[in-house]
Amino acid sequence: MPRGDRMRAQMVKYLAGVEAGDVEAVVSLFADSISVEDPVGGPPGTHVVGIDAVRVFFREGFAASQPRPRRDGPIVTTAGDEAAMAFTLHLELEGGLTEVDVIDVMRFDEEAQIISLRAFWNFRDARHHGSDR
Amino acid sequence: MPRGDRMRAQMVKYLAGVEAGDVEAVVSLFADSISVEDPVGGPPGTHVVGIDAVRVFFREGFAASQPRPRRDGPIVTTAGDEAAMAFTLHLELEGGLTEVDVIDVMRFDEEAQIISLRAFWNFRDARHHGSDR
Repeated sequence: MPRGDRMRAQMVKYLAGVEAGDVEAVVSLFADSISVEDPVGGPPGTHVVGIDAVRVFFREGFAASQPRPRRDGPIVTTAGDEAAMAFTLHLELEGGLTEVDVIDVMRFDEEAQIISLRAFWNFRDARHHGSDR
Repeated sequence: MPRGDRMRAQMVKYLAGVEAGDVEAVVSLFADSISVEDPVGGPPGTHVVGIDAVRVFFREGFAASQPRPRRDGPIVTTAGDEAAMAFTLHLELEGGLTEVDVIDVMRFDEEAQIISLRAFWNFRDARHHGSDR
């Protein structure tokens, strides 16, 4: 399978794993050296490196907000080892449903395992629905 | 103006400059040290560094294909110095109109000048219309 197609397939699995709240399904896509920035430019604790720390990060994130992604447009591959995609993330926060626009940029190793995940979003731009706090 | 808004404003100007085929308008958004990867992972000659080389790169690109971008979804900022956006690029190539899905990732300096532009797209995924060659 061409590299672009392998990257795309991994990103489809990633979104499905997030949708299902399945931490192990998500972590299975990552290399041991995985680096996650979620969000890019975020406060301390949002740049997490290594599979064990990343597993905890996703477990806590899934428990805190039950994220549900809905992809917006195609997964964009490259002739290199990186790909990107836009999606809307629905979060269940205490104050109600929140939607945030995200673009994920991922880098892959030779086995198409994800070695870097950079999530572009800005909580300032999130859309909050439901009761205000 | 918050940094996110300044980055967004610069990206809006970038798309307008590309739409107008106005090389100087585009280049005015770049720092002297600008690094352009278009596409990411592309062959030699697609990673161009420095304002003079980048000016030539855009001039040749605009002349070759008259690119017209149509943004898909919001510009996604971060709390850091990077932002991203998805768009569809219409290109006038010899064989007819070609459409390609792109995600641009940009990094900004303290004056909101663009210091890095990374264009994610894969010509393999381009949609060609018009006469086949």
